[in-house]
Amino acid sequence: MRLFKLISGGAAIAISLPTLAWGQDAPTLESLAANDAFVFNTLLFLLGGFLVMWMAAGFAMLESGFVRTKNVSMQCLKNISLYSVAGLMFWVLGYQLMYGGGDYFGKFAVMSFASEDVATGYSSYSDWFFQMVFCATTASIVSGTVAERIKFWPFIIFTVFLTGLIYPIVGSWEWGGGFLDSKFGFSDFAGSTLVHSTGGWAALIGAIILGARKGKYSEDGTVNPIPGSNMPLATLGVFILWLGWFGFNCASQLAMGTITDADAIAKIFVNTNMAAVAGVITAVIYTQLRYKKIDLTMALNGALAGLVAITAEPLTPSVPTALLIGSIGSLLACLAVPLLDKFKIDDVVGAIPVHLVAGIFGTLVVPLTNDSATYFGQFIGVVSVGLFVSIISAIIWYSLKLTIGIRVSEEDEYIGLDQSELGVPAYPEFVKS
Amino acid sequence: MRLFKLISGGAAIAISLPTLAWGQDAPTLESLAANDAFVFNTLLFLLGGFLVMWMAAGFAMLESGFVRTKNVSMQCLKNISLYSVAGLMFWVLGYQLMYGGGDYFGKFAVMSFASEDVATGYSSYSDWFFQMVFCATTASIVSGTVAERIKFWPFIIFTVFLTGLIYPIVGSWEWGGGFLDSKFGFSDFAGSTLVHSTGGWAALIGAIILGARKGKYSEDGTVNPIPGSNMPLATLGVFILWLGWFGFNCASQLAMGTITDADAIAKIFVNTNMAAVAGVITAVIYTQLRYKKIDLTMALNGALAGLVAITAEPLTPSVPTALLIGSIGSLLACLAVPLLDKFKIDDVVGAIPVHLVAGIFGTLVVPLTNDSATYFGQFIGVVSVGLFVSIISAIIWYSLKLTIGIRVSEEDEYIGLDQSELGVPAYPEFVKS
Amino acid sequence: MRLFKLISGGAAIAISLPTLAWGQDAPTLESLAANDAFVFNTLLFLLGGFLVMWMAAGFAMLESGFVRTKNVSMQCLKNISLYSVAGLMFWVLGYQLMYGGGDYFGKFAVMSFASEDVATGYSSYSDWFFQMVFCATTASIVSGTVAERIKFWPFIIFTVFLTGLIYPIVGSWEWGGGFLDSKFGFSDFAGSTLVHSTGGWAALIGAIILGARKGKYSEDGTVNPIPGSNMPLATLGVFILWLGWFGFNCASQLAMGTITDADAIAKIFVNTNMAAVAGVITAVIYTQLRYKKIDLTMALNGALAGLVAITAEPLTPSVPTALLIGSIGSLLACLAVPLLDKFKIDDVVGAIPVHLVAGIFGTLVVPLTNDSATYFGQFIGVVSVGLFVSIISAIIWYSLKLTIGIRVSEEDEYIGLDQSELGVPAYPEFVKS
Repeated sequence: MRLFKLISGGAAIAISLPTLAWGQDAPTLESLAANDAFVFNTLLFLLGGFLVMWMAAGFAMLESGFVRTKNVSMQCLKNISLYSVAGLMFWVLGYQLMYGGGDYFGKFAVMSFASEDVATGYSSYSDWFFQMVFCATTASIVSGTVAERIKFWPFIIFTVFLTGLIYPIVGSWEWGGGFLDSKFGFSDFAGSTLVHSTGGWAALIGAIILGARKGKYSEDGTVNPIPGSNMPLATLGVFILWLGWFGFNCASQLAMGTITDADAIAKIFVNTNMAAVAGVITAVIYTQLRYKKIDLTMALNGALAGLVAITAEPLTPSVPTALLIGSIGSLLACLAVPLLDKFKIDDVVGAIPVHLVAGIFGTLVVPLTNDSATYFGQFIGVVSVGLFVSIISAIIWYSLKLTIGIRVSEEDEYIGLDQSELGVPAYPEFVKS
Repeated sequence: MRLFKLISGGAAIAISLPTLAWGQDAPTLESLAANDAFVFNTLLFLLGGFLVMWMAAGFAMLESGFVRTKNVSMQCLKNISLYSVAGLMFWVLGYQLMYGGGDYFGKFAVMSFASEDVATGYSSYSDWFFQMVFCATTASIVSGTVAERIKFWPFIIFTVFLTGLIYPIVGSWEWGGGFLDSKFGFSDFAGSTLVHSTGGWAALIGAIILGARKGKYSEDGTVNPIPGSNMPLATLGVFILWLGWFGFNCASQLAMGTITDADAIAKIFVNTNMAAVAGVITAVIYTQLRYKKIDLTMALNGALAGLVAITAEPLTPSVPTALLIGSIGSLLACLAVPLLDKFKIDDVVGAIPVHLVAGIFGTLVVPLTNDSATYFGQFIGVVSVGLFVSIISAIIWYSLKLTIGIRVSEEDEYIGLDQSELGVPAYPEFVKS
Repeated sequence: MRLFKLISGGAAIAISLPTLAWGQDAPTLESLAANDAFVFNTLLFLLGGFLVMWMAAGFAMLESGFVRTKNVSMQCLKNISLYSVAGLMFWVLGYQLMYGGGDYFGKFAVMSFASEDVATGYSSYSDWFFQMVFCATTASIVSGTVAERIKFWPFIIFTVFLTGLIYPIVGSWEWGGGFLDSKFGFSDFAGSTLVHSTGGWAALIGAIILGARKGKYSEDGTVNPIPGSNMPLATLGVFILWLGWFGFNCASQLAMGTITDADAIAKIFVNTNMAAVAGVITAVIYTQLRYKKIDLTMALNGALAGLVAITAEPLTPSVPTALLIGSIGSLLACLAVPLLDKFKIDDVVGAIPVHLVAGIFGTLVVPLTNDSATYFGQFIGVVSVGLFVSIISAIIWYSLKLTIGIRVSEEDEYIGLDQSELGVPAYPEFVKS
């Protein structure tokens, strides 16, 4: 039975009074206040959680649009798989590593402390879900950079390490209360460094070890652009990511039960939006001036770079400052694209300029508006994370390369991964030029 | 005027105090508690409602991606039409049949009992909307299976019966407090049987009566795979459905005003996600081992099968159990695909393995974690729904076949429904191979 | 640090009590009621805000699907750019013009009155965001009509005026408490006129001044249909818009803290949905009867026309009336399409029938169900907005035409804007027929 009793119930007024927790029969002012705050906080985590989960679809569409048709199915498979692996690994290991305070083996994952939830003011399930989707986002960042030439299973194995070990350890340093938080006062509100740079470093190292796609760079140093196959899908992806980012940044306020928290969340909404706005406008103007034609792909990445840049501190900046941060983040991403090409680092979707470069910038600029952070502390955070993620990633990527191999054969790369690894072409009826 | 007065208002503190219902001038603790619970509950139905409404888009994208280009516009039309028909029929007839307790003609639909809402603790409009989108989901399931050869209007007529009669009657047995609920203690939290199997049975009978697409099965028994035309669209569809499922399962908790309810909702979020996670991983590993190549379409359907399987009971399982349920649901769906082909039942999108097979499994497994259900009661529920839906569907499909006909001509099937029935090709500029 | 302290906290009960605003140490019944109402109201604006923001993606997909492949990237760029420009202009100028009550220069935008928010009952940031996305929607409407032949920069300059001046001035007359509200009792709940007709008039004047696409109308008066390139994308766009409309109409209730408001929001949900339902069904039946084949594009636009028509008053109609309003709105849009062709006004996506025609109808029909409005007042509102927007738009479009020019060269139109203005083809690998 679902609703029938409630609808046809007689003395139903009683039903509408919430039965508060803690076994009290009648609500008190305190218990009602605690009850409502608990519901608001849990709701915030779940709203934020589903919006960030939706970002997994955004990455899938963005990357599907930016790769060639022959690798689109593979990109879809990788994205739904990495989201799944992240969910599993963050449950098996990650959450405890990140928030366990050293007690990694005390509980097998975290999934049963409802009674303790009353004290914390939110459901631990909601918290776990919200933290998990951040972990998944980190893995999504890598997937685009190494597209079109990496084998499926090595990528998945790397994702297992990234989501089960690397991201949780880095996260524990700061959000888990570790040394970056306690010793250096490092500040990273929603993860410009902990999420976006972590993904960016892992992607950078992967791209270097993997090498560029065949034909991207000629012997003589010429860069041969390889256009993406589906621009409206990529645009859809960016809109999804922009939408999901409201969950990413706003629910990182971690509480919604009070006027102060609700107002902060609303301010973060506005600042997050405005950083993306500035990112788009900056990239449009920059590419118009620099290349005489506007580059849609840079406009899209400009939005994302603006979003990444504001993520380290979306609460304290005023709107003009948020615009400025988004604008500079976007400009730096625009400048980083040719720089990567100079070093023949082949980043298929531009994830390194967007998530690594803008992420570092956003983190370093926090003390401009947030007095509790210092430039030194921010610098230490950026460098610590960069060194750790790069070294561990290099070890894992290399180990995979030396054992099962990470790159498909030249022939498989030529015919495309959809055919060689999956046998499921993305657009079997559309003739290719 | 919209906000102006509030903004410039003088003695505005008074405005910010909510005017509680029931004509009281000053709020009491009880009235405030009831007020807040009412808002939370209504909000839950609306959040869940819009997420499940969004699933209609998910089905449209999934099916558009899985059919051939020549039938894509038709699939889009069918999906937006069936959602509309479901809304109309569930208002004209369905809701009263399902929840009226025998009083089918007392009220013409349900749309004006705001005063009684205070007693039930939520807005009846919000409840109606949430129940309606479940009805629409049932119809969406059928649309994919019978794609590429069914005429538009017979499909719509079937949808009228399915959403106005079949689904509401089945639903009344359980969620409306009928015999499955009162006599057998049948338990189906969010509708593995009532929604997904119902749609699945109607689809199965439709597929049998309609026959397979031309060319799918050769005389000699060979199965000729007909690849879907657009894999990223199908992937997008699955991500949309996954997202919408949080609304589907979580808002089926039916209340959010208390710590207990909020915590339950959060737990359902996690379990729902983990069942899908296990579904993806299982299908990826299974198809890799079984076919040597990973099948993206099975990975996508694996996610959905995991979701369907957990839907009957997403609250009581622990996380490992949710993973197990999702995994077995996905595996059963993988195994059912070749089985259907053996019987030459042509299910274009795999809706029968996903919604019927995994739906039955999920329903039968409820007593494993929920003591209030019995294996006998669950079995009775599955069989009752199966028999009823199959028989009524067969009668309707056959009647349509014998009168106006349900299948397009061989020539129309060859040139595609977009041209023969609509005159609107989906991709007019893309040359077909 | 993120959650660690809360999780491991000892005397954590204290934490879960919300710290109410206004410096009170212990919550009182009044402060708790005000606190919860504030959170609910702010949440409503943010939920509505993100849903309406998502409509920007809906317009992008709809328009990408309705233009030819050679102009798809440009349409994506325009849509993400106009959303960005709207955000910037509504912050720099628009919001103050609209809601400042004549005090345009008192504050540079609106972004810091958190302390006053307590009195209004919601966060001003959340209000600003919700109002901004309405402004962006107005600009989205124009972008589709003038597609496939307008230059990028003149379109952006027009958008600057539309979002910074035209829309805010029109809005100030009614939602800002101006003469339409105070003198004529004009009623426009969520903007059939203020948003949709405003966009529609601007689009109409633009289409006239710009002229039709090459080849759309032959010398002899024949209309040559130019089919859209991607129907599933257009369908996705409509589903996104339908979903976003729940935010558009429901959050225009502007408050969610009480039983009365929550019930009103739920009723608006149902009415909004039912108007779209009727719009789809009407267009499907109409095109079947009129043209013998169902027109998917009209079914899609029928949904939107139904939504536009109900937007002026989604609260007071009963469900049957909402169905009727949606149905007539859709029918009028269906009839307007050939009418526009008769005058050789080339509206690429059908935005004028949908947003202007159905918007006028919806506004005029408000007094049918809402006693506080008069047919005279509604008529004055429609005419005032129509005259003002048309005249100002004509001045701006003409000025642009006479100076920098608004239309691409015939050759550029032939090769497509993606190549001539952007150099980024939307589908570089798909051979065109």
